[in-house]
Formats: sequence, structure tokens, C-alpha cells
Amino acid sequence: MSIENLSSNKSFGGWHKQYSHVSNTLNCAMRFAIYLPPQASTGAKVPVLYWLSGLTCSDENFMQKAGAQRLAAELGIAIVAPDTSPRGEGVADDEGYDLGQGAGFYVNATQAPWNRHYQMYDYVVNELPELIESMFPVSDKRAIAGHSMGGHGALTIALRNPERYQSVSAFSPINNPVNCPWGQKAFTAYLGKDTDTWREYDASLLMRAAKQYVPALVDQGEADNFLAEQLKPEVLEAAASSNNYPLELRSHEGYDHSYYFIASFIEDHLRFHSNYLNA
Amino acid sequence: MSIENLSSNKSFGGWHKQYSHVSNTLNCAMRFAIYLPPQASTGAKVPVLYWLSGLTCSDENFMQKAGAQRLAAELGIAIVAPDTSPRGEGVADDEGYDLGQGAGFYVNATQAPWNRHYQMYDYVVNELPELIESMFPVSDKRAIAGHSMGGHGALTIALRNPERYQSVSAFSPINNPVNCPWGQKAFTAYLGKDTDTWREYDASLLMRAAKQYVPALVDQGEADNFLAEQLKPEVLEAAASSNNYPLELRSHEGYDHSYYFIASFIEDHLRFHSNYLNA
Repeated sequence: MSIENLSSNKSFGGWHKQYSHVSNTLNCAMRFAIYLPPQASTGAKVPVLYWLSGLTCSDENFMQKAGAQRLAAELGIAIVAPDTSPRGEGVADDEGYDLGQGAGFYVNATQAPWNRHYQMYDYVVNELPELIESMFPVSDKRAIAGHSMGGHGALTIALRNPERYQSVSAFSPINNPVNCPWGQKAFTAYLGKDTDTWREYDASLLMRAAKQYVPALVDQGEADNFLAEQLKPEVLEAAASSNNYPLELRSHEGYDHSYYFIASFIEDHLRFHSNYLNA
Repeated sequence: MSIENLSSNKSFGGWHKQYSHVSNTLNCAMRFAIYLPPQASTGAKVPVLYWLSGLTCSDENFMQKAGAQRLAAELGIAIVAPDTSPRGEGVADDEGYDLGQGAGFYVNATQAPWNRHYQMYDYVVNELPELIESMFPVSDKRAIAGHSMGGHGALTIALRNPERYQSVSAFSPINNPVNCPWGQKAFTAYLGKDTDTWREYDASLLMRAAKQYVPALVDQGEADNFLAEQLKPEVLEAAASSNNYPLELRSHEGYDHSYYFIASFIEDHLRFHSNYLNA
């Protein structure tokens, strides 16, 4: 497994580092970032929060803008931020910001030309944690979180793999992609027109049917431009209600879809995950 | 005075806003950002911290990456971040990242073609605070801080205007620009070859001769690539020593020149300023 260290920055007594590696799952070179808290330098194995970013983002947005490293350092949690899709000249793409590179939607594509590289579900669930757990001083305690498209990714991945994650959280997730324009466009391209295949990537449908629970926290801004058309938190809330699912869904007056919203409440998310990761 | 609101994001219970206005000092349209803490919405007049950014930056870098708004909200301090130079098609520029647009060095240029627009010293000292204090619910208590080129700007502006600022701080400032490549290149272009005119923009020379004191905090990373050639904190420290100047200069093992360094210690800077602004 070849892996290259691209950058290192000391941060809150720990280290922010970027790496490039060849992904066998995605069939291309991939970049990810990791924040290792100070506790990781003392021989302790720390738990890991995986952060999945939204449309157009890379591994950098969350690491630079969320203000999460302060809490991760305090609580002794590593954070891993993968890219949002396969990348590179040979990788299929689209002119829209909401399909192709930067918009992998955390699914395993079955349709050409996407299926050759767009296997982000398997990458996040299997290959990346294997790499992280073999290379860094981390335990096998995992949490997962994300924003918007990445909130969709975090919820669906946790709901389908409850034995692999201690907790899940999201900011402004796409809660019901089978019923919104972003989800319908991406799923048609990646998964095809048979909408039955979409169901395993829809957080609301999965939560309604879940038999094992992963504690879940979701924050949504009420001034989010995408709220009514794309995000639909009321659908997730109804699913949780119908299945008695342990979801805390919070609504915040005045907040939008930006990282200013994420930064304002990231402390609550880190402390929420710490309750389960450090239990 | 025409001013246009470009964006608004709720953040930590307050508001991050960007504005465009026509600057008479700079002879062009300018953008700035302001963070108004929650206290500013309750009728209270809050003090203001002016933040001056480094080479290539705009009003956005600090607001997005420093993690300062959490503390500003807690302490009841507004933050104002101007751009780092005049901008626009009619504004003189240079191919280098360290001269021209994005690199105003917070001086009043006397040399053509720069002198038509590059009057950042007057803009930051006079025009911008007048605008801020007439438009927003802020008091006339001011502090000033910055990073790298902006640390140079903050220190020189506070040292020359001790009656206008309660406190000053800097991360990784250019402490002795008359003796480093960045400063010599910029000052030659903006101020001309008569190095006597450079002295009023050199923090170390000003600190050595200061008769009135503004309490000062400076943080420097020991793994900063620019430390020895461009920044020279030891020259500032010697100047403070020789003049009994109230400077606290801290050196941090392993930290570099990036915003990860700034974010790691910004809390100390906000609390330092709050001691004087909220006294």
C-alpha cells in the first residue's frame, strides 16, 4: 500500500496531515486529511470520527473551517476527512457541480461510465478505515458525521453498518434523496432508472426500517436555502418517530447552509460523539 | 457614503457580514467583513478588533479559518477584516504575490504608479474606523491584530497611534521589514529608494523609539518557513527590551505559518484584547 504524506501542520498540540494514496476500490489516487490529537503522540490509541463533506468540497473544507480540531484535541479524537469523489483526468465527470467529481454521493455506482471509479460507499466503509487503522495510532471505535451530501453519506453508512459505528451526526443532510432534485439526478446517473436500487441510499427509508440503532444527532438551519427542496428533515423525523429511532433533530433559527453554521455547533457534535467513543 | 451588503451568515448567535463600499482614501471599491457578536443585537455598543491579513489574503481568510467568532461572541467583541490592498482592473499590480494587489503592506505609497490607490495605512487608521463607527453598534474602543504582513501592519499602526488602540497583537509578523526581502521589495516600490522614509513603517524601529505604550502580544511558530529570513522576532524583542516596552513575545515549538497555528492560539489573543477593550 503506497501512501505519501503531502503536508503536516501542528494544530492544537496535535497534527493535521494530508496524504495521497492509490485506492484499489476507486481505481485512482485519492487524498485524505487526518487530524491526530495530542493523545495520539503518547502511545494511546484514539477513536476516529470520519467526516464526509458536501458537494464541491475536498478534504480541506472541514479541516480549515469547522473549528473541530480544538475539541478533538480536548477530547482525544482523531478526525479523518476523505475527498468527496474519485478525481483525476481519467475519471468520468459532468459539467454540473452536483454530479461527477466533487459529488460522489457516497454510493457504489452501477452504471457506465461512473461504475469504473465511483465506489465511494465501499471506500468510506471498508478501504479507508482499514488504511487508517493500519497506519495510525487509532482504535477501532468509529463515529461518522457529515454535511449536506456528506450528511446523507454519514446517515446512510451508519444506518447500514450499525455494528461499525458508535454514533452518527449530520449538519443539513439530504435526508430523503429519492425525493429531491440532487438525489434524483445523482441516483439516476450512478444507479440507473430502477428506483428500487436507490432505497439502500436513502436515510429516511433506512431509518424507518432500521432494526439496530446508532445514536444520531442532526442539526438544521432554518435559513438554509436548500431546506425545503433538497433537505427535507421532516421526512427523517417522521421516519425516526415511526420506528422509535434515537434521533435528536435540532432546528436553529437564522442559520444557513454554510460552514459558519457548522462551526457554531461543531462542539456539540464532538461532545456527542465523545460520549459514545470514549465510553 | 454608499455601502452594499454582500452576504450575511449567522454565526455563534451573532452575524458575519460582508460589505462593499467606495473608498475615498483608496480611490476604488473595497470589500470588508465584520463579525457582530450577539451583544451587538441587544442595543449595547461593543468594542472592535481590527484584523489585518497577510499576503494574498482577502477579508475572508481570517473569518473562515481562525475560529475567532466563538470567542468574539463570548466576549462581546466585534471583528472587522479589511482586504489587504486596493483591488480592481484600474489598480496597479505586479506579477509577484508579494507586491501589488493582495500585498498593500499597510503603507501610504508615495511612488507612481502605486500612489494613486495604495493608501492602506490611511484607510485602516482613519476611513475604515469612521465608517464602522458610523454604521454599526460599536464603541470607539479599538484593538488591532494581524498575521505576517498584517502583523507588521497591526504593530506599526498601533505604535504610531497609541491613543487610538487599547491593545495590539500579531501572529508571525514581519518585525523588521527594512531588513528583509519582503519589506525591501515592497518599500522600494511603494516608498522609493530613500530608506529614511521606510522607518515609520518598521515595527522594531518604532518600538525602540516609542514614548507611549500599547500593550502587545506576539506569537511566533518555531517551524515557520519564513522565520529567519523574513520575520526576525528577535529584532522586535531586542527593541522592546531596550525601551522597556510591554511586549509579550511567545515562541511555539512545531507550529508553522498557517492558519492552523493562528486557530490554535487565537483564544489567547481575544482574551488578551478583551482585558483592555472591556476594562
